Amino acid sequence: MSSRVYLLNGPNLDLLGEREPHLYGHHSLADVETLCRSTAGRLGLELVCHQTNAEHEMIGWLHEARHAAGIVINPAAFCYHSVPILDALRLCECPIVEVHISNIYRRDETWRSHSILAAACRGVITGLGIEGYRLAIEFLARQIAADVPSATR
Amino acid sequence: MSSRVYLLNGPNLDLLGEREPHLYGHHSLADVETLCRSTAGRLGLELVCHQTNAEHEMIGWLHEARHAAGIVINPAAFCYHSVPILDALRLCECPIVEVHISNIYRRDETWRSHSILAAACRGVITGLGIEGYRLAIEFLARQIAADVPSATR
Amino acid sequence: MSSRVYLLNGPNLDLLGEREPHLYGHHSLADVETLCRSTAGRLGLELVCHQTNAEHEMIGWLHEARHAAGIVINPAAFCYHSVPILDALRLCECPIVEVHISNIYRRDETWRSHSILAAACRGVITGLGIEGYRLAIEFLARQIAADVPSATR
Amino acid sequence: MSSRVYLLNGPNLDLLGEREPHLYGHHSLADVETLCRSTAGRLGLELVCHQTNAEHEMIGWLHEARHAAGIVINPAAFCYHSVPILDALRLCECPIVEVHISNIYRRDETWRSHSILAAACRGVITGLGIEGYRLAIEFLARQIAADVPSATR
Amino acid sequence: MSSRVYLLNGPNLDLLGEREPHLYGHHSLADVETLCRSTAGRLGLELVCHQTNAEHEMIGWLHEARHAAGIVINPAAFCYHSVPILDALRLCECPIVEVHISNIYRRDETWRSHSILAAACRGVITGLGIEGYRLAIEFLARQIAADVPSATR
Amino acid sequence: MSSRVYLLNGPNLDLLGEREPHLYGHHSLADVETLCRSTAGRLGLELVCHQTNAEHEMIGWLHEARHAAGIVINPAAFCYHSVPILDALRLCECPIVEVHISNIYRRDETWRSHSILAAACRGVITGLGIEGYRLAIEFLARQIAADVPSATR
Amino acid sequence: MSSRVYLLNGPNLDLLGEREPHLYGHHSLADVETLCRSTAGRLGLELVCHQTNAEHEMIGWLHEARHAAGIVINPAAFCYHSVPILDALRLCECPIVEVHISNIYRRDETWRSHSILAAACRGVITGLGIEGYRLAIEFLARQIAADVPSATR
Amino acid sequence: MSSRVYLLNGPNLDLLGEREPHLYGHHSLADVETLCRSTAGRLGLELVCHQTNAEHEMIGWLHEARHAAGIVINPAAFCYHSVPILDALRLCECPIVEVHISNIYRRDETWRSHSILAAACRGVITGLGIEGYRLAIEFLARQIAADVPSATR
Amino acid sequence: MSSRVYLLNGPNLDLLGEREPHLYGHHSLADVETLCRSTAGRLGLELVCHQTNAEHEMIGWLHEARHAAGIVINPAAFCYHSVPILDALRLCECPIVEVHISNIYRRDETWRSHSILAAACRGVITGLGIEGYRLAIEFLARQIAADVPSATR
Amino acid sequence: MSSRVYLLNGPNLDLLGEREPHLYGHHSLADVETLCRSTAGRLGLELVCHQTNAEHEMIGWLHEARHAAGIVINPAAFCYHSVPILDALRLCECPIVEVHISNIYRRDETWRSHSILAAACRGVITGLGIEGYRLAIEFLARQIAADVPSATR
Amino acid sequence: MSSRVYLLNGPNLDLLGEREPHLYGHHSLADVETLCRSTAGRLGLELVCHQTNAEHEMIGWLHEARHAAGIVINPAAFCYHSVPILDALRLCECPIVEVHISNIYRRDETWRSHSILAAACRGVITGLGIEGYRLAIEFLARQIAADVPSATR
Amino acid sequence: MSSRVYLLNGPNLDLLGEREPHLYGHHSLADVETLCRSTAGRLGLELVCHQTNAEHEMIGWLHEARHAAGIVINPAAFCYHSVPILDALRLCECPIVEVHISNIYRRDETWRSHSILAAACRGVITGLGIEGYRLAIEFLARQIAADVPSATR
Repeated sequence: MSSRVYLLNGPNLDLLGEREPHLYGHHSLADVETLCRSTAGRLGLELVCHQTNAEHEMIGWLHEARHAAGIVINPAAFCYHSVPILDALRLCECPIVEVHISNIYRRDETWRSHSILAAACRGVITGLGIEGYRLAIEFLARQIAADVPSATR
Repeated sequence: MSSRVYLLNGPNLDLLGEREPHLYGHHSLADVETLCRSTAGRLGLELVCHQTNAEHEMIGWLHEARHAAGIVINPAAFCYHSVPILDALRLCECPIVEVHISNIYRRDETWRSHSILAAACRGVITGLGIEGYRLAIEFLARQIAADVPSATR
Repeated sequence: MSSRVYLLNGPNLDLLGEREPHLYGHHSLADVETLCRSTAGRLGLELVCHQTNAEHEMIGWLHEARHAAGIVINPAAFCYHSVPILDALRLCECPIVEVHISNIYRRDETWRSHSILAAACRGVITGLGIEGYRLAIEFLARQIAADVPSATR
Repeated sequence: MSSRVYLLNGPNLDLLGEREPHLYGHHSLADVETLCRSTAGRLGLELVCHQTNAEHEMIGWLHEARHAAGIVINPAAFCYHSVPILDALRLCECPIVEVHISNIYRRDETWRSHSILAAACRGVITGLGIEGYRLAIEFLARQIAADVPSATR
Repeated sequence: MSSRVYLLNGPNLDLLGEREPHLYGHHSLADVETLCRSTAGRLGLELVCHQTNAEHEMIGWLHEARHAAGIVINPAAFCYHSVPILDALRLCECPIVEVHISNIYRRDETWRSHSILAAACRGVITGLGIEGYRLAIEFLARQIAADVPSATR
Repeated sequence: MSSRVYLLNGPNLDLLGEREPHLYGHHSLADVETLCRSTAGRLGLELVCHQTNAEHEMIGWLHEARHAAGIVINPAAFCYHSVPILDALRLCECPIVEVHISNIYRRDETWRSHSILAAACRGVITGLGIEGYRLAIEFLARQIAADVPSATR
Repeated sequence: MSSRVYLLNGPNLDLLGEREPHLYGHHSLADVETLCRSTAGRLGLELVCHQTNAEHEMIGWLHEARHAAGIVINPAAFCYHSVPILDALRLCECPIVEVHISNIYRRDETWRSHSILAAACRGVITGLGIEGYRLAIEFLARQIAADVPSATR
Repeated sequence: MSSRVYLLNGPNLDLLGEREPHLYGHHSLADVETLCRSTAGRLGLELVCHQTNAEHEMIGWLHEARHAAGIVINPAAFCYHSVPILDALRLCECPIVEVHISNIYRRDETWRSHSILAAACRGVITGLGIEGYRLAIEFLARQIAADVPSATR
Repeated sequence: MSSRVYLLNGPNLDLLGEREPHLYGHHSLADVETLCRSTAGRLGLELVCHQTNAEHEMIGWLHEARHAAGIVINPAAFCYHSVPILDALRLCECPIVEVHISNIYRRDETWRSHSILAAACRGVITGLGIEGYRLAIEFLARQIAADVPSATR
Repeated sequence: MSSRVYLLNGPNLDLLGEREPHLYGHHSLADVETLCRSTAGRLGLELVCHQTNAEHEMIGWLHEARHAAGIVINPAAFCYHSVPILDALRLCECPIVEVHISNIYRRDETWRSHSILAAACRGVITGLGIEGYRLAIEFLARQIAADVPSATR
Repeated sequence: MSSRVYLLNGPNLDLLGEREPHLYGHHSLADVETLCRSTAGRLGLELVCHQTNAEHEMIGWLHEARHAAGIVINPAAFCYHSVPILDALRLCECPIVEVHISNIYRRDETWRSHSILAAACRGVITGLGIEGYRLAIEFLARQIAADVPSATR
Repeated sequence: MSSRVYLLNGPNLDLLGEREPHLYGHHSLADVETLCRSTAGRLGLELVCHQTNAEHEMIGWLHEARHAAGIVINPAAFCYHSVPILDALRLCECPIVEVHISNIYRRDETWRSHSILAAACRGVITGLGIEGYRLAIEFLARQIAADVPSATR
């Protein structure tokens, strides 16, 4: 069985660490990818990392990833309106975990507390900082290892 | 520093495994507590486990836990309306992780996709089955070990 | 097959007859239970009667009743917000009839016209006074006798 | 005192048993009328039965029935918007019971859970299949026998 | 130029005087038509009077009346939802006055304060009892006499 | 009995005839007052005329008019939000007719179709141009003459 | 297999060509029926044509047509509120195409952009003028010829 | 006449002084009860004090207090959703004053500005700190002394 | 420190006692001002009393009062929409208590239960009749005496 | 006159046939383009085919197509939020037909039943599978042939 | 052509500089008027300056200004509800620029982000501090100089 | 200090002058850029001009511009839903002015009156045609010259 997992980051995350650090902390995207690669490597997974500000690139990677072993996606601001990405997620056959670094329920703008993409994922981790990425990969590793028939998917 | 962590489960979770298994899986509450105790033990944490169908008992345990090292709470149906529990969570000084076994964003009843308690927690893990509990404890263990000043709290 | 039926009454019904008699009439809870016991007895059913002002007690009785032959529940004010009771009703395998003494569609407060619990019951009888309880028990008796496979449940 | 009761069925009920039997069961309108006539006969009531797909015919029968002893009405889809029928119901002096075969609270289309006519009736029985008609007639028979001054009407 | 004016009354107005007299007064439909005929006669107008509980009959009369000199319509409960009548009113070339006997802004049910038909009429008179009909006819008479180019229509 | 009637016009009506004539026609406020005075005079009523752009002046005149024989008020834009004027209307004991020159149901801005003041008046005439004022005075004259006990008020 | 197709037109379409030609064009209902008959004839279909302003007649024809080969329906203003017709459509076993002459998404009244009936049809053609009818019949002809198992129905 | 007054405090008020002192100040519940007892004593009233985190206990005390001389209730978070407590308040015959320590209109969460219980009380004092309790008792004392027939209740 | 307190009453309160006495009681504005002056005098405060139906006068007095020792304001109907008065209240540096004579939560018109001004005041007293004024002055006296640093303002 | 027609397909349609075949059927995008080319060729039209997952590419093609003879667009998920595409459609001078393969009115997610783009198109065909494309091209061919002045556009 | 421009400032702006300086800065109204007069003088315009807390005064000045060369208006809190001022703006024939000192889109109270008056103005400048006034006058000067036929008005 | 200012134009503005000239006027994008360059040059600023139909390009330029001296952005249709651009604006440290050529408050589609981006900008200029761009640059020039500490930002 495939052991390739995709780590996909959405718009403005290329500037992670620069943007509103009281919300997102001081780690850069490179830090995130390093953390994830080391976690994945330890667990025997191959990790493919991408970041984009363009919706169509994200869709393209999801099309590519749809037969992979798993996907970790931080859609950032794409999570509020992008039905094209929602439809692309629906095309994927593998388990998907959506990650948000900050707690979207705590943001001042109340509309930030709802991701339209969450309904197309296996689950969501929000507010646990960059640890959320690590936990998502650990979850996927266990799923892939067990090849669990995804009853709740 | 304290290493006591509370695992608090809300209404109807005493029948976990019997209730709508296509949503919640076949594990019982005892399975959840065993998994969590073994995780906590491995990480050097003391785990206090409670389950209740009564709002006031949950409030009482939160009052008791407010100076502990961390809290994992699955508020179940309390998460939709219980402002008394929201206020009790706000009294707690330690990091709190809210866990839901099923993906609340995927439920047929759309009002199930919003927890009013989430805004009072550090973060939320939803949809990852009983693995969500394990990941929550692992997150807390790392926080407690690092005694990280909680910038994003 | 079991012939035990539960009659569960919710908050403030212990003062039935005292409270707003233009809405609820002059019968007491004892009158209701007497009427129901005599109806049940005549139809060969065993009736278990409870009243509570506490949500968690109601949940406990529903857990207990979930393998009984039927349930008649007047949730009173629990019907507007109690998702914990909704979830407990979903756990029950027997037919459930929700009864309201007054016509909830006629109340001045428009939010009183909707019970969130109704979707988890076989049916609802509202506005027929304490006769509603009798009719509910007669309905259950007929169902139990016929052991009708509940097509519409 | 009059012992005439009207049984009025609304649109598409002439095809009862053909339409979505998982919701409405397999009984035909003739079965319903036979059940009701036998119930009424046993209780000493005269039963007048009508079915129509036309709103104005329903209004005409309600005008005719307004001084009768009671009315059982299954307004079917008229219950969502027909203010003319609501106004006609308000003209009636006798007790009225609204009956729905399926549980309108359980329908996928959420707007189906509310009948604007319910506020003009003594009470509502929903979800108890064609038994609902029988219970409604039994309720009216008891009311007529007692000539109960309708405190809650 | 034509001097024919239509007086069209909607559902349940055949029982005017019987229905909720605190809202609609004690005059019958015959009283209304007598008042209107005498007013029209005095002003040299021919009056065609109809009442119906059937939407399609109302539409038919509006089709017939669309080249008349004017229309007075009390749509009664048709005013809340009947788009077919709205469309039929839009087909009429003559001035139309909508009349309501009671003040629709004062009704307990707040949805009664809005008529979807009003936007297709020259104007509306509401709450002036059966005098409203008389005033409407007097208004039309003056319009017809002056053959006023209807600037505000 | 008093035969004094107040004609009260609200903001911007001092420029009637200048403002959006496709909506309000070409008559000036002086034309309106002349029409009303002649109508009132013919019917034996004394007419007091005021126009103001100031809410507090309108309130003052309503306080003064509250024991008069009747009031015709075109509140103009005060009708959308002025609760102080609503409360002042509620203090009046005489019949009140609200008049709008244009059909408020036909305005492009949908919020213009609702007057919060209408519920405090006997009735409303809208869309009949300045004829609406004349009809309102004729209505009041008839009421005053008959000294009708205002059942529907 | 049956080759009978029903063409059903709703309220006010008997005056097609007279009504708001900037929206509906200058063709009459007779033109529509001629176009459709010739299209149907060319494709070997029998066409049954009806128009009505009465909801109950439309329901009756749908009951009659429910085992036919196909239905083309322009419900006109019935499409906004008629749940009785929605339920009748649900009873039909053949493919149904809903046609609107004007583009309902472009109407000034925004509520005109939604047909509650569309969910009970195979598909909808809107805004293509009377060509829409022709295309609907051509679609049905192809379906009937192929006897396509309607996967998406 | 009875001179017993109940002081009832709701959930989390047992930790008053610890919780968000910028909102609630530094006084403890003991301070509040001391202040109230001394005020009540000075005015010749007997004061019964309770605090609970349990809805059913609050209901029980309200049942007990319903024939007392007056009630001061700070329902805390029960004020947002607890219809059972609303119904229990409706059962009470004595004057009730609802007190909130902080100004609920100023809270960040806008839903905190509305208490569903307020409609069942004589009046509400909000935002005046613990002085609000003292003023409520002084109000009740004056009412009891005067045995004022409660016109506005 | 200044001991001047302003008592400001809004529109229609000049007719207090005449207006809807079942809601507002029989006391006149003079009674209120007498009560307040005597209370203030007893407590060593200077009281400045004003009433107006004009928004701009109220604003003027608030500008004048902004450096006083305290303000008691019954804004009456200004409380629903007057953002200019809200902004003027925000300019004031002294504690402000908003008073309503009737319980605004109990009014039939549900929009009456919310004051937009409350968020700019220290607290609100509603429903306690004219006693509310007295309690407000007593509260301010105590604040002024203690010169309490207003933690919760 | 130009005979060039554009066929523009939006996001995820490159995977047509793979994605939720119960909704979209088993045909691939290549099948669609083959069908359309053959239809266009038969009718003497030149067809330009594009598919993209990128909003800006769709805008670019619309700019290019704005002086063509016609456009068939299946915007897929762009139809819910893309105002940039709406504005680009508004720039086009030729007739546009929007096509959806599935019936958007039947989707579980109710927000899928509304396309914001529809108001900028001549008409919409939804739910007729890939036949919808063919019908759209046939419609455009007839329009182009007739060079019909588009009265209803 | 007239070169008179009106500068109209609304409620509470007489205290500009005192009020919430973090929002409005430290400049006084006199500073604003000095800045505007000097700008206007340099550009050959005559400037008429007014400030008022009274809606009717603002209306009066707008009536006076309606044939002037231009209007700069900062309606302050009048912009949220004052339909009388909206109607007065509609009477003006000259270009109008609405100015807000703070960025109304950034205010904590979300209802502050919408001015109902904006639709009656040529344009709006918000958030640029008192510079906004200067830019508005420069815009008007250029318009007046060019006597541009206002295509977009 | 940097004197580089970015002028960023969004989707469809490349066709400015062609598109709905009654709304946007007849100037082309080249005209706008010429006007802005000459204004900037005169004021000693360096101007970088870009236009794009692609959201990700806009984000890229904002990332590039975030340490510039200022930004003038006309986001066009991106202003309604693009949270990715909102987040990119939040990353910028320089003052930003949002410009709209037409008055977005006057558009027929009411949703066009709100820009979600406005809250992330210093201010907004709307409805002043292409003059809005010039004024924005003049504002920035003055800010940059003064190096004003942005109190209101």
